[in-house]
Amino acid sequence: MILIKDIQVDGLKKDVLIEGERIGRISSEPIVPPEGTEVFDGRGKALIPGFVNMHSHAAMILLRGIHEDLRLYDWLERIWKIEAVIDRNFVYQASRLACLEMIKGGTTCFNDHYWFAPETRRAALELGIRPVISFLFLDGHDKETARKQRLACERLYERSKEWNDSHGFAIGIHSVYTVSEENILWANNFALEHGLRVHMHLAETALEDSDCRREHGGLSPVGYFDRLGVLGSHTIAAHCLYLSDDDVEILGKRKVNCVHNINSNAKLASGFRFRYNELRDAGANLCLGTDGAASSNNLDMLETMKTTALFQKAWREDPTQMPLGELMDCATVNGARALGIECGAVKEGALADLSVVDLDNSYFLSPGTFLGNLVYSAHSDVISDVIAGGRFVMRGRKVEGEEEILEGARSVLGMIHSEK
Amino acid sequence: MILIKDIQVDGLKKDVLIEGERIGRISSEPIVPPEGTEVFDGRGKALIPGFVNMHSHAAMILLRGIHEDLRLYDWLERIWKIEAVIDRNFVYQASRLACLEMIKGGTTCFNDHYWFAPETRRAALELGIRPVISFLFLDGHDKETARKQRLACERLYERSKEWNDSHGFAIGIHSVYTVSEENILWANNFALEHGLRVHMHLAETALEDSDCRREHGGLSPVGYFDRLGVLGSHTIAAHCLYLSDDDVEILGKRKVNCVHNINSNAKLASGFRFRYNELRDAGANLCLGTDGAASSNNLDMLETMKTTALFQKAWREDPTQMPLGELMDCATVNGARALGIECGAVKEGALADLSVVDLDNSYFLSPGTFLGNLVYSAHSDVISDVIAGGRFVMRGRKVEGEEEILEGARSVLGMIHSEK
Repeated sequence: MILIKDIQVDGLKKDVLIEGERIGRISSEPIVPPEGTEVFDGRGKALIPGFVNMHSHAAMILLRGIHEDLRLYDWLERIWKIEAVIDRNFVYQASRLACLEMIKGGTTCFNDHYWFAPETRRAALELGIRPVISFLFLDGHDKETARKQRLACERLYERSKEWNDSHGFAIGIHSVYTVSEENILWANNFALEHGLRVHMHLAETALEDSDCRREHGGLSPVGYFDRLGVLGSHTIAAHCLYLSDDDVEILGKRKVNCVHNINSNAKLASGFRFRYNELRDAGANLCLGTDGAASSNNLDMLETMKTTALFQKAWREDPTQMPLGELMDCATVNGARALGIECGAVKEGALADLSVVDLDNSYFLSPGTFLGNLVYSAHSDVISDVIAGGRFVMRGRKVEGEEEILEGARSVLGMIHSEK
Repeated sequence: MILIKDIQVDGLKKDVLIEGERIGRISSEPIVPPEGTEVFDGRGKALIPGFVNMHSHAAMILLRGIHEDLRLYDWLERIWKIEAVIDRNFVYQASRLACLEMIKGGTTCFNDHYWFAPETRRAALELGIRPVISFLFLDGHDKETARKQRLACERLYERSKEWNDSHGFAIGIHSVYTVSEENILWANNFALEHGLRVHMHLAETALEDSDCRREHGGLSPVGYFDRLGVLGSHTIAAHCLYLSDDDVEILGKRKVNCVHNINSNAKLASGFRFRYNELRDAGANLCLGTDGAASSNNLDMLETMKTTALFQKAWREDPTQMPLGELMDCATVNGARALGIECGAVKEGALADLSVVDLDNSYFLSPGTFLGNLVYSAHSDVISDVIAGGRFVMRGRKVEGEEEILEGARSVLGMIHSEK
């Protein structure tokens, strides 16, 4: 058990008792620590929910910077060549580095989409944070690849049944342009049959939109996936940048979880006009993600929040856009809801996935609100401690085994250097 | 003297000897430290020029968050009400806090524009970094205010002649819409006569542009200032967002120093289409600034660089826009050139205004370039040490007197709380 004493929660001083993996009690009155409780001094600090990164390719952290200044399709083509040579150990070591970076940024849960997914899961569990991994369908319209992927998916699903965290396994459908219709249907049916979520890229570029319309009788990517029955509250759709009014209506009506990844979209020049207001009003659940660090170029949710707000205000030409409270929800509880995990909020009964923010610095010495200072002024290094599942995964900005994680990542870097 | 041993400079391991306030020698061969030299171990670190923040209102750091989500003119109106009550000591204490934040972000020189400017200068010199302050003309078209400002300007100029740093004093002309034509002409002539620079806001909003055209016979802010003879290589023009092709040509031909401040522009929804390429090609000198922390909301040049690149790539719909080398120049040497100060570069003979970057973290463990990793992946907390004028102003992320600076800032916060 951990008792956090005298910490700011939503602007008020509280004691927070963590019992097992959950928040047991939050009180304005002093809580007497039960015997054997670790007491954490929360004075001069604030408690926030751990961030939920809703779209990542964790292991791509070791591909960052390898190809800069390319458009998505050109970039993907080069990245895929490199990905053809990486192995299980590469993904494991890279994922450990990614989890280290995520923890340092206050992220306690992430929704990943990559090859050798169980290795990413292993890395995350070792570091103590909450992974959701996908079995990735990307068959390039090849029948044999498609068949093999279905078998491998079934095998991984069987393994996942033994996991404690039932929501840790999802189905990944890469995109409308990389997966055969047969496999899209199979994968989605498999997900629905077994109560799994489907994680996909959707409407990321103008080219994806025009190609899709040409190949599928004028249907947009959203329209096409909807015709196949893929869109629903079980779907987590990354990007959603190129949306007609009809597309917005569909995503809202189907209660799709849409994930905005502005840093990646802007850097690849894929687009930036994410229709936040319209999607929200239509009924979609809106979340934030970093995308892979190879395109974004880091896994920092706080930075992502600021960039999101700047772009929303700028392109709408309206400084009132993207209110802070909603922005924080997008980075925390909305993602938790999409994944069906009870984290993303500082409240009694929720999973104790929490970050401690140090207030003793220039950023918080201002008449602004805590949230305004956190998002617009500070950087993630104000996050001093991180708790996930009721356990400290970072203390005083130190993560256990940090040096060894860097060492492990260095050991596999050669694999891609030779393939550049 | 300081000898930095085995540090990466432009990707190569070097020894760097700092003699007095300048870089004496840079060598690939080991430099034997002269007696009494402090030796700094540069292994696992890289050396970069200190950033030159070309547009700041340092003391506004204590106004940040006070009014969020407003358009520039509404925001300015409220800010001006608060500024009416602040005093010398407020500006001094706030400027100290601002300098602390700038140092932590690797900024060693800044071009400021604010009331009680000598207090900002005093704060910066105490903390060891290089200020350029402006006497601020903002008369609201009131003749008596205008007259008083001219007298005060002359007095401050007389004082500045005793300063060691001849380039530390400039003339500030707030904008086309806040200063009378008489004062604009007087201030510019005064600057030209005494070899001073003029620091101004220019073409920041669409409203400024349309108002100016209405009031000045169709002339844009650039056209109007040019008619008055204000634009030249002595001019530092912040924002430059609303530019016709003719405006671009004028700014280029006159060799104006244009300062882009994307975080402030985007947050206030003033605009984001800074015509970087066109201005560069026309011959303008392009720099970066943070603007005041009340609108941006911090003084972080590294963050500003990333946001700049993301917006340039995004709105041009071209991922090759804003190459890293040019971006770095905008944040360093271009500003130094604009100010006539020999900083902003790691080279022999230059002023020793330098930042040390710690490479032992996830951000630099990638196949990317150093600059790519620094700008796109890292945050300013990778800057471990900062040297300005040949002296350490930060060591191991600690700035001397940090607690006392925070304390001093807290002591004046009440002044604005009551005026909110």
